Amino acid sequence: MRIVDLIAKKRDGAAHTQSELSRLMDGYCRGEVPDYQMAAWAMAVYFQGMTASETAELTLAMAQSGEQIDLSPIPGVKVDKHSTGGVGDKTTLIVAPLVAACGVPVAKMSGRGLGHTGGTIDKLESIPGMRTELGREAFLAQVASEGLAVVGQSGNLTPADKRLYGLRDVTATVESIPLIASSIMSKKIAAGADAIVLDVKCGNGAFMKTAAEAEALAEAMVAIGSGVGRATTAVISSMAQPLGTAIGNALEVAEAIRTLQGEGSEDLTELSLLLAAHMVRLGGAASSEEEAMELVRSRLADGSALRRFARFVAAQGGDASVADAPDERLPQAPYRFEVSAEQEGVVAEIDAAQLGTAAMILGAGRAEKDEPIDHAVGLTLLRKLGEPVRAGEALAALHARTPAADEASRLVREAFRIVPAGTQTARSPLVLSIVTESGVQRMQ
Amino acid sequence: MRIVDLIAKKRDGAAHTQSELSRLMDGYCRGEVPDYQMAAWAMAVYFQGMTASETAELTLAMAQSGEQIDLSPIPGVKVDKHSTGGVGDKTTLIVAPLVAACGVPVAKMSGRGLGHTGGTIDKLESIPGMRTELGREAFLAQVASEGLAVVGQSGNLTPADKRLYGLRDVTATVESIPLIASSIMSKKIAAGADAIVLDVKCGNGAFMKTAAEAEALAEAMVAIGSGVGRATTAVISSMAQPLGTAIGNALEVAEAIRTLQGEGSEDLTELSLLLAAHMVRLGGAASSEEEAMELVRSRLADGSALRRFARFVAAQGGDASVADAPDERLPQAPYRFEVSAEQEGVVAEIDAAQLGTAAMILGAGRAEKDEPIDHAVGLTLLRKLGEPVRAGEALAALHARTPAADEASRLVREAFRIVPAGTQTARSPLVLSIVTESGVQRMQ
Repeated sequence: MRIVDLIAKKRDGAAHTQSELSRLMDGYCRGEVPDYQMAAWAMAVYFQGMTASETAELTLAMAQSGEQIDLSPIPGVKVDKHSTGGVGDKTTLIVAPLVAACGVPVAKMSGRGLGHTGGTIDKLESIPGMRTELGREAFLAQVASEGLAVVGQSGNLTPADKRLYGLRDVTATVESIPLIASSIMSKKIAAGADAIVLDVKCGNGAFMKTAAEAEALAEAMVAIGSGVGRATTAVISSMAQPLGTAIGNALEVAEAIRTLQGEGSEDLTELSLLLAAHMVRLGGAASSEEEAMELVRSRLADGSALRRFARFVAAQGGDASVADAPDERLPQAPYRFEVSAEQEGVVAEIDAAQLGTAAMILGAGRAEKDEPIDHAVGLTLLRKLGEPVRAGEALAALHARTPAADEASRLVREAFRIVPAGTQTARSPLVLSIVTESGVQRMQ
Repeated sequence: MRIVDLIAKKRDGAAHTQSELSRLMDGYCRGEVPDYQMAAWAMAVYFQGMTASETAELTLAMAQSGEQIDLSPIPGVKVDKHSTGGVGDKTTLIVAPLVAACGVPVAKMSGRGLGHTGGTIDKLESIPGMRTELGREAFLAQVASEGLAVVGQSGNLTPADKRLYGLRDVTATVESIPLIASSIMSKKIAAGADAIVLDVKCGNGAFMKTAAEAEALAEAMVAIGSGVGRATTAVISSMAQPLGTAIGNALEVAEAIRTLQGEGSEDLTELSLLLAAHMVRLGGAASSEEEAMELVRSRLADGSALRRFARFVAAQGGDASVADAPDERLPQAPYRFEVSAEQEGVVAEIDAAQLGTAAMILGAGRAEKDEPIDHAVGLTLLRKLGEPVRAGEALAALHARTPAADEASRLVREAFRIVPAGTQTARSPLVLSIVTESGVQRMQ
């Protein structure tokens, strides 16, 4: 079958065989299938979709298109965690040491931020001395000794996905559930995960705007996991507002440390515990969800997660004293401005995406790949959804490199919608649902 | 709006504005819009379609993407004719001199054959001495003096269509009515047509397999004509079997001349008269369809169409005596074989596409662009649909360059399906319907 016939097959709504998908992906990687054929195919997939088994086969074909990390030297079930990307999402910094403290090894590859969402590697690099590039041997050795290592993606992982994602971005074919799901899962599988916990964000600040879309994506990813023998659980959580209070690299590390110290904000703590519990459960360190939750709560409360964080930072060359005094050891922005409420009332809406953009403009994020970032700058939310505020009281603080930050200030001010006290407002719970192989469990 | 946003707009089912379509086509021609974006857009059009006014705007954008022939120095309405391509379709060779003989000037650009369908230019070149490349001035001068010139496509006509067609061919986006319709009509408009008569072929030997598909394409093209101010009439004719009896270049010229002599087969004569009458009507030389039909019948019967053909051949350097003795003046293949019926009965099916392929294998056509062709070779049908045949009687004659033609013989034999006399068989009329701005007129 010629490639044009494969495109016609998908266009006409038929399902590809495993060998057809391998041929497509291998040919694309080798440059034998040109971008224009792949673009037409992706648009056909946009309209016709893919079956669960097709999506799983596509995922495997992409995972196998490049290097694959072998985590088998590490004993036990290696559980990876992935967030679809949100604003102020620093859960990996909390969850990874917490899970490791429960005895489940965490060998994690993370990414850098782009646009209004941040990346774990950028955040870690705000810790003085922290190395995020380890050789493959050193990476495995550290997981063996410390139970935890977090490094940047290196090597030639999932080149088929990289090329295809770049192409989808310029051909209006990003918004396809099977293509999004296979892209995410292929990276996790190539990175060696035995089991995967997904945090699918939903709402204004996230890629998936509605709970239904997020649930569809979660189900597709759980089905892929099931199809390729990697137990997968997806938590669907709200991005109706940023998670926690900090947006910006060092600010988020400090907030993660405060959370590990037991002083985190409620939403961030709750989501971190839930994600960690599911990882611990899939990792085999607890035999029920209740037991897993009890275990992670106790490891957070007794300080062992915080100590694990410090050991991990030290192992990667970072200043471990950051765990005791984050505000002193982490870089600080020279200027601090407050954005105040213009009227009295209650915070009814916070545009998370817009706050992400404001942080990016301050220098905390990148508009384009490979741009440098400023670790010190960012935002702190001083009011969250449902909280009362008086006219003139601060809504957020800007941490800036420059003595003026008008554009960012304007964006932050406009991101808050204040309504008179007593107005009925929509409240979305933090966790909307949990998707496993057994089905969807909706909260409330 | 970025190109990716235009793709998303079409993907989501919205209609493009005129300026969006110009931008897309101009950008594509200039190389600013890459093939992969155009391929994704074409697939989105495949699924979402285009409105009539969008299709008309796309057609104009493609027509204006390159050189445009100015036929205004020739007085009167310039009517062009286009066939969507069939097997044994030599109507242009008959219709063009017939229309010219009725006083309507014909300034025609024609193409070469590819695959199982032939091209008028290849056919004309089988006439000794015939030139099919004239300068623009000489072309117009000949139309002025002889009322008729037929030349190969030259210059940089509709480069946007050329590129897009090549891309659609390898991205499974050929089968889109608005894209097919705009491709055909853009070429006619760029070639200077004031009015257009379309012969939309339908059936096994044609691109459109069913009457419904052919009618949809015809309606789209008539709507484009209406949208851009070019009166357009489409005749939907059957390709259930080859038109007339000859397939192959010199053989078809000889058959066309016999038809101009009044001795053509019934189907070929009928369709030629009908197409010519519609051209004469649109060209303003008759005030009703009946009058137009009367005029073309008389010009065929009185020999003026044949004389016009001879003048036209002479004007382009060809041997005009071909009009009197085609079999003597045209090249002849050295070998002739007959393919015979293996059983007695009635011809129930003739696979026109397969006969076209057989003729191509004999050397009458090209599998790839720019291949040389052999003007002398081809096929002659000795039986047509519904005709009785005895076992051992000839169904067709092969005119070959070589003393054996096993593959072509096999294809020809297998192209005929003979059923016992008295078996009920489907008979399709030659002309299925006529589509004009006022609507569809179905035959019987």
